[in-house]
Amino acid sequence: MTRLPFQNVTIVGAGLLGCSLGLALRAAGFGGRIIGVARRQATLDTARARGGIDHGTHNLAEACDGADLVVLATPVGTVLTQIDELAALDVHNAVVTDVGSTKRSIVERAAGRLGRFVGSHPMAGGEMTGPEAARADLYTGKPCIITPTDTTDGEALAAVEQLWTTLGMRLRRMAPAEHDKTVAVISHWPHVVSVLLMEAAASAEALDVASTGLADMTRLAGGDVTMWSDILLDNAEAVCEAIEEFSLASSALMKVLRAGSREELQTLLADARRTRQDWRPEAPGEHA
Amino acid sequence: MTRLPFQNVTIVGAGLLGCSLGLALRAAGFGGRIIGVARRQATLDTARARGGIDHGTHNLAEACDGADLVVLATPVGTVLTQIDELAALDVHNAVVTDVGSTKRSIVERAAGRLGRFVGSHPMAGGEMTGPEAARADLYTGKPCIITPTDTTDGEALAAVEQLWTTLGMRLRRMAPAEHDKTVAVISHWPHVVSVLLMEAAASAEALDVASTGLADMTRLAGGDVTMWSDILLDNAEAVCEAIEEFSLASSALMKVLRAGSREELQTLLADARRTRQDWRPEAPGEHA
Repeated sequence: MTRLPFQNVTIVGAGLLGCSLGLALRAAGFGGRIIGVARRQATLDTARARGGIDHGTHNLAEACDGADLVVLATPVGTVLTQIDELAALDVHNAVVTDVGSTKRSIVERAAGRLGRFVGSHPMAGGEMTGPEAARADLYTGKPCIITPTDTTDGEALAAVEQLWTTLGMRLRRMAPAEHDKTVAVISHWPHVVSVLLMEAAASAEALDVASTGLADMTRLAGGDVTMWSDILLDNAEAVCEAIEEFSLASSALMKVLRAGSREELQTLLADARRTRQDWRPEAPGEHA
Repeated sequence: MTRLPFQNVTIVGAGLLGCSLGLALRAAGFGGRIIGVARRQATLDTARARGGIDHGTHNLAEACDGADLVVLATPVGTVLTQIDELAALDVHNAVVTDVGSTKRSIVERAAGRLGRFVGSHPMAGGEMTGPEAARADLYTGKPCIITPTDTTDGEALAAVEQLWTTLGMRLRRMAPAEHDKTVAVISHWPHVVSVLLMEAAASAEALDVASTGLADMTRLAGGDVTMWSDILLDNAEAVCEAIEEFSLASSALMKVLRAGSREELQTLLADARRTRQDWRPEAPGEHA
């Protein structure tokens, strides 16, 4: 492995993302210390048994003492609170990052209070939660958005980017607000769509005749409730913009259908088909 | 196998659904003759090489001569035309069914003209098309909607239901209009949603950072353009109703997000999550 500029890593939140991070660090050859923080003892015990952390504690201050990297891997609402807690502690030497799915409010909260904070959003996860579902390759080949600002510490930025690159992620930098707008379109609103389609199918009492297409479209609806409530409320503005854009597109589509405009419909379907086939998300190794 | 009341089966359209039907019949022990009809010689050759049909022809009249079961496995628009063609031929002894994804216009077109017609909609398929993608188990464990009316011939209905049951499908009867409304919600509108999400993500120039969630939500967008144009135009009214319902639900959701109503949001997400988990479409064997 590329030598990482950390020896003492603290992972706050030992669930799917946190425990997988520990496993991935070990798989990449990281030989330093990994401390995990969680509220529930069972989470810490499982994360330790899986090998994602060396030692677990409920105490954030104790866990961060001597850390040179702190990764916040908790739901977005908790990340915000923990930034306040870290700011009150003496963690000046530690690089701090997070894995939250929104970035504007998190980066703003840390600004001027955690000198070496860098916002990260590794695009990895799944419907499964908890350290039981953790995997050493959860991050491998996936995209990771890094959201530096004008005031971000350069050394901390380099260190965080090296962390995710070492785990095999494909990096892209974005401004925090740009990140939030983008993921509203590619992740947050699609999640809500999945929920709304699930509800509509249930109301139609048609689940017994639904098939693989609806199963694909509603997989996200099985996701964690607290995590997604945090994300959607924190990024409400950008999600609502995505909803409005989508409503315009579906109104336009209704006009096409009601007019029976076959050519226009075929152009839309053919464009989307080509985009999907060129994208090839099932072959992540092929991405730049 | 249960003995099927057919000896001479004609499958019109030797693509994914038609060729898979032939393979499934053989896998179930059907020993009679299977004739395939297609426009393209390559389709017939592949279907025959795969074992889905015994003999291929471009000529519908020749293929239906002596048939006791004719299955129309072509796109919805073509099914409508072929019903006209069959009505002009002497196929009075044959039970006729189809695998089209809409039922009202098809059943209406056949009414009073094909005395032994029964509408079927096996909920099976995928993004892959053509006889190359055919599989003997394509229909196994999947739902199949049968749409008899007051004038449907009872013996023909029993025979068609026996066909799909023999292939391992789970049957449900619906009136044709009820079918079209239901599949608009669980299949046709979700397909369009997939297309619109694909277009939105491409417009945001964000495909390089999108991950497995969006991949699930856009899998349907890779589907066949002609087949889906036919379906959406034929079922335009019910699809537009589904769009309007969805728009109401997303407007309500915007209000919840803008008001920051965490409790309401969590209730919605938790309901959908429970529904998805109880549904368990990934374990089709468990369905009634």
